[in-house]
Amino acid sequence: MTDYRNAPRREAPLDLASVFLGPKGENADVFERLLLEAFRDHVFWRRNFHPEDGFHVTEGEKHSPDYQRAISTLSQELMGLLGELKAGVPFFSPRYIGHMTSDLTMASLIGWFATMLYNPNNVAAEASPVTTRMELEVADQLARMIGYDTETQWGHLTSGGTVANYEALWVARNVKYLPVAVRWAAEAMGVGGLAAELPDGSTAPLDRLDLWQMLNLAPTAALDLAARYRERVGDAYQAVHALAENSLEGMGFQEFGRRLTAVYGDALAPGVVLVPSTAHYSWEKICRTLGIGGAQLVHVPVDGRFRMDPAALEFGIRRLAERRQPIIACISVIGTTEESAVDRLDLLADVRERMGRELGVGFYLHADAAWGGYAASITRGADGSRRSYEDALRDYAPEVWPEEGVYRGLCAMERADSVTIDPHKLGFVPYPAGAVSFADRRSRDLIAVEAPYLFHRGASEWGYIGRFILEGSKPGAAAASVWMSHKVLPLDARGYGRLIGETARGARTLHRRLSAGDWAPFRVVPLPAPDLNLVCFAVGHPELRTLEETNAFVARVYGAMSVSDARSARMLDYFVTKTELRQPEYGDAAVPLVEALGFSRDDYHRAGALAVIRCTVMDPYLSGGRGGVDYVGGFARTLRAVFEAELRG
Amino acid sequence: MTDYRNAPRREAPLDLASVFLGPKGENADVFERLLLEAFRDHVFWRRNFHPEDGFHVTEGEKHSPDYQRAISTLSQELMGLLGELKAGVPFFSPRYIGHMTSDLTMASLIGWFATMLYNPNNVAAEASPVTTRMELEVADQLARMIGYDTETQWGHLTSGGTVANYEALWVARNVKYLPVAVRWAAEAMGVGGLAAELPDGSTAPLDRLDLWQMLNLAPTAALDLAARYRERVGDAYQAVHALAENSLEGMGFQEFGRRLTAVYGDALAPGVVLVPSTAHYSWEKICRTLGIGGAQLVHVPVDGRFRMDPAALEFGIRRLAERRQPIIACISVIGTTEESAVDRLDLLADVRERMGRELGVGFYLHADAAWGGYAASITRGADGSRRSYEDALRDYAPEVWPEEGVYRGLCAMERADSVTIDPHKLGFVPYPAGAVSFADRRSRDLIAVEAPYLFHRGASEWGYIGRFILEGSKPGAAAASVWMSHKVLPLDARGYGRLIGETARGARTLHRRLSAGDWAPFRVVPLPAPDLNLVCFAVGHPELRTLEETNAFVARVYGAMSVSDARSARMLDYFVTKTELRQPEYGDAAVPLVEALGFSRDDYHRAGALAVIRCTVMDPYLSGGRGGVDYVGGFARTLRAVFEAELRG
Repeated sequence: MTDYRNAPRREAPLDLASVFLGPKGENADVFERLLLEAFRDHVFWRRNFHPEDGFHVTEGEKHSPDYQRAISTLSQELMGLLGELKAGVPFFSPRYIGHMTSDLTMASLIGWFATMLYNPNNVAAEASPVTTRMELEVADQLARMIGYDTETQWGHLTSGGTVANYEALWVARNVKYLPVAVRWAAEAMGVGGLAAELPDGSTAPLDRLDLWQMLNLAPTAALDLAARYRERVGDAYQAVHALAENSLEGMGFQEFGRRLTAVYGDALAPGVVLVPSTAHYSWEKICRTLGIGGAQLVHVPVDGRFRMDPAALEFGIRRLAERRQPIIACISVIGTTEESAVDRLDLLADVRERMGRELGVGFYLHADAAWGGYAASITRGADGSRRSYEDALRDYAPEVWPEEGVYRGLCAMERADSVTIDPHKLGFVPYPAGAVSFADRRSRDLIAVEAPYLFHRGASEWGYIGRFILEGSKPGAAAASVWMSHKVLPLDARGYGRLIGETARGARTLHRRLSAGDWAPFRVVPLPAPDLNLVCFAVGHPELRTLEETNAFVARVYGAMSVSDARSARMLDYFVTKTELRQPEYGDAAVPLVEALGFSRDDYHRAGALAVIRCTVMDPYLSGGRGGVDYVGGFARTLRAVFEAELRG
Repeated sequence: MTDYRNAPRREAPLDLASVFLGPKGENADVFERLLLEAFRDHVFWRRNFHPEDGFHVTEGEKHSPDYQRAISTLSQELMGLLGELKAGVPFFSPRYIGHMTSDLTMASLIGWFATMLYNPNNVAAEASPVTTRMELEVADQLARMIGYDTETQWGHLTSGGTVANYEALWVARNVKYLPVAVRWAAEAMGVGGLAAELPDGSTAPLDRLDLWQMLNLAPTAALDLAARYRERVGDAYQAVHALAENSLEGMGFQEFGRRLTAVYGDALAPGVVLVPSTAHYSWEKICRTLGIGGAQLVHVPVDGRFRMDPAALEFGIRRLAERRQPIIACISVIGTTEESAVDRLDLLADVRERMGRELGVGFYLHADAAWGGYAASITRGADGSRRSYEDALRDYAPEVWPEEGVYRGLCAMERADSVTIDPHKLGFVPYPAGAVSFADRRSRDLIAVEAPYLFHRGASEWGYIGRFILEGSKPGAAAASVWMSHKVLPLDARGYGRLIGETARGARTLHRRLSAGDWAPFRVVPLPAPDLNLVCFAVGHPELRTLEETNAFVARVYGAMSVSDARSARMLDYFVTKTELRQPEYGDAAVPLVEALGFSRDDYHRAGALAVIRCTVMDPYLSGGRGGVDYVGGFARTLRAVFEAELRG
C-alpha cells in the first residue's frame, strides 16, 4: 500500500494561461513584443554582416513608381490572403472539438518565425549549424521521455507521422532480410564462422541456419550479426559494399526473391505486418509502397477498449508460425486516431518475448505513438526519472486518470524497437513536425545512402544527418520550433504532462456529460471512457429503423457541425467530426455499441460500418470554466438542437 | 531570320528590389508593417468569434507570479534562440554562393507566418478550406508553366524534391505493372475483349500480349486500358477492388513475382530506372525503398555539358531491349544540383518516341526539375502563352542566355509524364515546399489508398486530397506561402523569369571572371558555362603533383570558405561549397577538366573523383553593382588569397 504522508510536495505547475495566444488573443501583447524582437534582431544581424557593403535599395529608390507599385501589389495581395484566411476554421477555440488541430504554443510559433528568417536547411549541418544540433537535441529529449538509452538511440524530425512510420517499417523490412544479406556477403568476402543469437537465447552458426531461422532473428540479434561481419571483414568500405550488393535494398525484391528461391528451394510465404484493427489507413499505403503489399497487412482484433488484444496477437503469431510465414513487424498504436486508445504495449512486448522463446519467432516491434507519444511525459519527473503510477494518478485528481493500463502502455514504449511521435499533434507546434526514434542507432545504417567517399573524408557524426533520412531538404525552423516549445513545456509531468492531463480531464468531463444526459427519445451511446482525449459516440432514435438510416443521420449531424462549402465557421457554435468503425477492420469490437443502439451483429455486418461522432479535446480549458463559459454544457445543448433539427430535416 | 523591328515592346519589369527583405534589411519597414498587420488581423479574428465568450486570461491574472515567471521563461528562451541563430549562415548576402539557399521573398515569409497562425492542415479540406484550394491553384499554375493541360493534370505540394520524385517513381512502378494487373483482374471479373495500344501505334487484344509486350505499354496506353476495364466492369467499387487484389501494390513484390513466374514461365529480368550520371543521390535511395533495388538504377552517360547524352540513352535502350529487360522509367534532370545542367529533354523525348515505334519499347519519362523547373517561366508571356526563343533571348541581353538547347529542354517538360519542381529552391520560398505534377490525373489512382466507402459518401473532388498523396498532415502555410509568392512574381518572363535571369547573369559573369583571370601559378579550370546558375571549377598548382593532392587542396580551399565547427560565418568574406565528380557515375564527362589540370584519364580513374569548388548564384544582385560593391571582383581576390594561404598551409 502506498504511504501518501511522505509523498513529495507537488511542484508548482506552470501557468498554462501563458502557453497559448489564447482564444481571445489574450496574450497578444506578449506575442507581438516577442515577434518584433525576433524580427528586428534578425534585421540588425543582417546589417552587422560586412557593414562596409552598401545598401542595395536606397531610400530614394523607394520613391520610384516601380518600387511603389511592387510594394502596393504585395500589400494588396496580403490583404487578400488575410481575407481568405478568415474563411478558415477556429481551431483556437474550445468550441472546436473536431479534428486533431488546436491553438499552438506561442514558443513554437515565434521560434518558427524567428528561424524561418534565417532559412536553415537541416539536410546538412553546413546549411544549418544551429538547427541541426537543435534537431538532435529534440530527438534526444523524445528518446529520454520514451526511455531509450540516449547513448545508443537515433532519432530525427520528419514531415509528419506518415513519413516517420514509413521510415520505421523501411528499417523493419531491411532488418528482417539482413541475416540473409550478411550470410551472402560473408560468403562473397570469404568470412566464415559467424554466429547468430536465436530468439530462444541459444547461439548457432549462421551458415547452419535455415531460411526460416534467418528470417526470425530479433532485430538486435540481426544488427549484432552485421556488426560482427563488419569487424571480421575489417575494411569498412568493402564490408558495406558487399552487404549492399547482397541485400534486398541493393538487389531489389525481384532479384532477391529469385535468389532466395534458387538457394533455398521454395521461398517462404511473403512477410506480413501486424497492426491493430484501429491502425491508421496510412499503414496500408506504407506496405504497398515498400513493396510488401497491401495484402500482407494483417489486422489483429482489438478488445472492447479498442486496444490490440494480446491474446489475439499470440493466436495470430502461432498461426503464422505454423504456416512458416515470417512477420516483418508488429505495429502497436499508442493513441489511436479515432478513439485515442493506448495499446497495452507492455503485454504485447511480453507476447513477443514469449513467442521468441517458445516458437523461435522474432520480429520488429514499432510503436505508432504519433498521437499519444507526448502523453508519456506524465510518467516523467522533472529530473527525467520515471514516476510511480500513484504519483501520476495524484496529479490529475479527482479524475482517475491515467488508467493503470494506459500508464503501463506508455511506459512500455521503451521496449519497442522504434517509436513515432508527432510534435505537430500533442506537441502543439506548427505543421510540419513529425519524429521517429530508434532504440538502436545502427538501424539507420540499413537505410543510409551508400556514399563510400563519406568514409574517407572524415565527415563528423552530426555533420550530414540527411544521409540517414528519407527526406532531403528539411526546415530548420521546425527543429527550432519544437526546441523552443520543449523549453517552455518540458517533457515531464509539470510541462507537457500537465497540458495533456488537462485535455484528458476535459475529454472525461465531456464523456461523463454525454453518458449521463437525458437524451430521450434519442439514444446517445458513447464509446468507453477514452484512454487519452478523444470522445466518440453513436446516436440513435426510434424513428431511425435501420443501422443504415442511423449512420446517415449521424452524417447529417456531422454536416451540421462542421465547415463545408455550405457552412462557414461563422455559422457554427461547436465543431465536431465523424468517423466510421468499419466492420472488416473492427471485427466485433463495435458490436456492444451497435447493440446498445438496438441493432444486431447481423445489422452491423450488413451495414458494414457504424458511424460515430468524434470529438478531439486539445484545449486545456474545455472543462475549466475559464472566461465563465460552460463549454461542455453548451455543447450538449447545441447537440440536442442539432439532433432535433436533423431528424426532421 | 527573325525580324526584330516588329518585336513587341518589353513589358516593364517588376522591381526586384521590392521582392526580398534585402541584405541590409532594406525593406524592414515594409516587412514589419505587414507582419504586424497580419498578426493583429488574426488576433481580431479570434476576438470576433463568439464575442460573448469571456476572456480566458484576465489582465489581473497576468500579474500573478506564476504567469510572470512563465512569460519570463518564454522571453528568456527566445533571447537564447536569437543568440544561437546568429551562429547561422548569412544566406541573404550576395557573398554567400555556397549551397542552394538564399534570401526568401517577403511575400512567402509573411504569407507563411500569417497562415501558420491559423494552422490549417492540407490533408483534407475540412481542416483547410482555404489553403487546400490554394495548393490546387499553385499546382495549376505550375502545370500551366510546364505546359500540361490543366483540365487533365494532377499536382500537389510535398515536403520536398525527394518525396516528389519518390511519388513520381512510385507511380511509374505501378503503371509499368498495371497492364498485367488489368489482365488478371479482367480474368477474375470475367471481362474479355480488352485491347491495348502498343508503342508502335498498333492495337492488340490484351490477352494475346506476351509479358514483354504488357510491360512495354506507354503510360497513357496503360491508363487507357485500365479505364476501359473499369467501364466494362461497371461497378466502380468492384473494379477497383479486383484491380487492387491483382496489382503489385496489393500483392506485394514477392507474390506478384511468384505469380508472374507461375503464369508466364521464367519471369523477365527486373525493371530498371535510367538516370543521367549527374542525377541526385536520392534516386538510389528511392529505388531501394520502393523495392526496385539500387542495382537497377542505371546511369546513362552525360555529354561534355553534363546533359544526358541522347545517343547514349538510345544505345542503352537498345541493349536493354535485346536482353528483354523492362525499363520502369527514364529520369531526365532539368538543372542538376552540381552543374545546373539542363538535359535536352526534347531530344530524350524524341528517343523515347522513336524507340517505341522501332522496338516496341515503352516506359515512363519523368523530369526531375527540382532545381531548374522555375526557369521555365522564361518561356511564358504574361498571358501564359509560350514565348519564342528570340523573345526570351532578348530579355537577358547582352547576355546570350538562355542557350537555345536550354530553352528547348525547358519547353519539353510538357512531354514528360511528370515533373518535380521545388518552390523552396528557385521559388525562393521557405522550407518545406516541393511539388510534383502529373500530366495525366489518372496517375493518382495508382497510389490512392483503397478506401471503398469514399465511393459512396460523395466526397467532393477536392475535399480530401490526402488520399492521393504519400504524406498525411501537411502545412497549409506552405501552400499560402507559395501562393503569395506567385502573386507577386508570376510564373512568366516578367516575374520569376526575370529573377532567375538575373541569377543566370550573375553566374555567367562569375564564370567569365574565373575563366579570364590570371591565376598563375595556379590553374583555375571552370566547367563549361552553366545552363542556369551554378558555377563549378577545379583548381591546380604545379606543386600539387597528383590528382589526389589536388583534390585535397580543393577540400582545404572549401574548408577555408565555409562554416564549420572551426570557422564561424563572421570570420568569412565569401562562402562556397564543393562537390566531387565521381568517376563511377560521371564516366568520361570530367576527363577534359582533368586533362586541363595536367592529369590523365588514368589519374582520374585511380583517384576516383575530381573535386571542384561549387558556387550557387541565387542572389539577383551578384553582378549588378548595387550598393557600390563589386562582389565578383571581391570574390576573385578572396579566392586568390585563400589559394595562397592553403597551398602553404
